Amino acid sequence: MVMNRAFLLDSRPVGAPAGPHNFKLVETPVPQPAEGEILVRHHWLSLDPYMRGRMNDAKSYATPQKLGDVMIGGTVGEVVDSRHPRFKAGDMVVGMGGWQLYSIAREGEARRIDPAAGVPPEAWLGPAGMPGVTAWVGLETILQPKPGETLVVSAATGAVGTVVGQLAKMKGARVVGIAGGPDKCRIAVEEFGFDACVDHRAEDFAERFADATEQGVDCTFENVGGLPLDLALARCNPQARIAICGLVASGYDGSPTVLRNIGAMLAMRVKMQGFIVSDDMSLWPAALKELAGHVAAGRIRWRKTVAEGLEAAPDAFFAMLKGGNVGKQLVKLA
Amino acid sequence: MVMNRAFLLDSRPVGAPAGPHNFKLVETPVPQPAEGEILVRHHWLSLDPYMRGRMNDAKSYATPQKLGDVMIGGTVGEVVDSRHPRFKAGDMVVGMGGWQLYSIAREGEARRIDPAAGVPPEAWLGPAGMPGVTAWVGLETILQPKPGETLVVSAATGAVGTVVGQLAKMKGARVVGIAGGPDKCRIAVEEFGFDACVDHRAEDFAERFADATEQGVDCTFENVGGLPLDLALARCNPQARIAICGLVASGYDGSPTVLRNIGAMLAMRVKMQGFIVSDDMSLWPAALKELAGHVAAGRIRWRKTVAEGLEAAPDAFFAMLKGGNVGKQLVKLA
Repeated sequence: MVMNRAFLLDSRPVGAPAGPHNFKLVETPVPQPAEGEILVRHHWLSLDPYMRGRMNDAKSYATPQKLGDVMIGGTVGEVVDSRHPRFKAGDMVVGMGGWQLYSIAREGEARRIDPAAGVPPEAWLGPAGMPGVTAWVGLETILQPKPGETLVVSAATGAVGTVVGQLAKMKGARVVGIAGGPDKCRIAVEEFGFDACVDHRAEDFAERFADATEQGVDCTFENVGGLPLDLALARCNPQARIAICGLVASGYDGSPTVLRNIGAMLAMRVKMQGFIVSDDMSLWPAALKELAGHVAAGRIRWRKTVAEGLEAAPDAFFAMLKGGNVGKQLVKLA
Repeated sequence: MVMNRAFLLDSRPVGAPAGPHNFKLVETPVPQPAEGEILVRHHWLSLDPYMRGRMNDAKSYATPQKLGDVMIGGTVGEVVDSRHPRFKAGDMVVGMGGWQLYSIAREGEARRIDPAAGVPPEAWLGPAGMPGVTAWVGLETILQPKPGETLVVSAATGAVGTVVGQLAKMKGARVVGIAGGPDKCRIAVEEFGFDACVDHRAEDFAERFADATEQGVDCTFENVGGLPLDLALARCNPQARIAICGLVASGYDGSPTVLRNIGAMLAMRVKMQGFIVSDDMSLWPAALKELAGHVAAGRIRWRKTVAEGLEAAPDAFFAMLKGGNVGKQLVKLA
C-alpha cells in the first residue's frame, strides 16, 4: 500500500515561541479519488509567511488552521489518478494541497499548468503564483507608482519583494529595497535591478535609509512592519501610499508597533491600506497572465531556496520567517 | 488715530511646552486699504487646533507661521472701509484675518456672508465654516459611512466632532463619540444625538469602548490619535476606514504612538488616510451650501465656547488644546 505523509497542526504557539514542535508528522494510506476528484502527487510545496498567522487562534482575515488538520499550503504536482473529465494522469496542476505528499482535489481546487507558458512548474508557486499576484495587486490597486517616484519595499529579496521591485522598475519608479544583511542587499541590486537596498541590520540603518530615499518616499510596499514602516513614514512625500502586505515584525507575538512619525499620515496626507491577495479573485487571471509572460521572457528574474523532502518543511518554514531564504522558499517533494 | 492690536508669534516651543509666552501683543495704527482692498473690523476670531502645528518649524502640510508675523486665524468681521467694487462698508465677511482686531483683505481673501442664509455670522467659523467642511470632507471622501455601520469620532464635542456625528447620523450610521469627561459625553448624546459616547478619562475606557462598539467599528474619524486610535484599530470590521484629521495626542511633542493593534490594518484590510480640508478647495462650495442649510434648519446643532477680547486668545487657545471647550472655540472681538 502506498503511504501518504503529512504534517498536521498539533498545537498552537500560545505563550511560547512557535516552532517545529507545533507540527506532527503522520502517515496514512494514500486516498482514492471519488467521482469528480483527482489524486495529485506533489512535486513542490510552497512555504509562505501567511501560514504563521494560521497557527494562531486569532480573529483575522482567514479561519485559523484547525488543530489536527493538515497544514495549509500551495502545491504543484502531477495528476496520478483522475476521475474528473478535464484532467488526465500526467497533467501538472497547481493547488492548495497542503504539507503532504499527496492530496485529493475537487472541481475548482486545482488549475492545470499550461506547459506552453514556458515557465517551470515551481514558478507557479512563486513569481507566477500567489507571491507574484500579491506584488501585482498591491502595486495595481493601492500604490500605483508613477515614473520617477520612489518606491520602498521591505523583505526585498523575498518571493513577493523581488517581484514588487521588478514590476515597479518596469513602471519607471526608483526602487529602494530593505533587506537583512549585505549579501541580500547586493543581490537585490545586482540580480534584481533595484536602484538601492538598505541593510536593516546595519547600525546606521536610519541614516542609510534616509540617504537612499533622498527624494522622499512615494510608495511603500510593507512586508515586515516595525521600524522600517516608521522610517518610511518619516520620509513620505505628499500623497504617499503605503500598502500593508505583511507585518511579520509585530503581528504574531503582540509586540506593539511604535510609530514616532505617525504625524506624517496627516502632514503628508498618506494613505495606508492593508490588503489580502485573495480578496478579489477576479484580478488573478490578468495578473497571472502578465506575470507568467514576464517570467517566461526573463523580464522578471527569480530565485528559489529549496528544502529537500517533506520532513525538512518545519525547519525551513521557521528559517524563512527569520529571513533565511532568498526568493521563493520551496520544499521539493518529488 | 485708531489703533490695531495683534498677537505675533514671538518664539517657537522648542524643547519646552508651548504656552502664551510664545506670543507677543503689539499695537500698531490701523492700516488704510489700497485700491482693490478692504479694511475689516473683526467681530469673531476662530481658534483651531491646526494653529498649534504652525507654531513648530517642522516639515508639514503648510508653511510654518513665520516668527514676528501675526498669528494665522479665521475671522468674521465687518467691512469698515472698501476700495473694492464688490464690497461696501457694513458687509459682513469671512476671511483669514488672524489674531488681531483689524485686517486688510485683497481679492479672494474675503467672502461676503449672505444674510439670507439664516445663519449667525460666527457660525461661518464653525459648523458652516472650516470645521464643518473638515467633517464633510472626511466623511464624503474617505469614510463614506453606510446605513447601519458604526462610526467612531474622537474629540466628539469639538467643533469638528459635533458635525461629524450629526452628519453621520443623517447617513444612517450608528455614532459613538469619544470625549473627555462625563459632562461632554452626556452633551454628545443628549444635545448632539450620538448613540453613545465614551469617556477616555475613565479607568475602564478600553472596556467601555468595546461595549459601545459591540458591532465593531467601520469608520473612525480621528481627531486625537494615541490610545483611542489603537483601540479603534482593535475593533475594526473588515474594510474599515480611518480618516486621520488630527493627531493632537502625539503630533506636537514627538511622543511616539504605540499601536498594539496595527495587525488589524492587514487582517481587516483597513484603509487609513490623512487629509487636510484645504487640499481640494473645489469641494468647499457644495459643502458650505449643505452645511449652512443644515445649520439654518436646525438639523445641525452647535455650541460655542467664547473668550471675551483679543487679550484672552492665548489662554483660550491652550485651554482648547487641553479640551477645555465644548463646540466651537471663539474669541469675541467686537
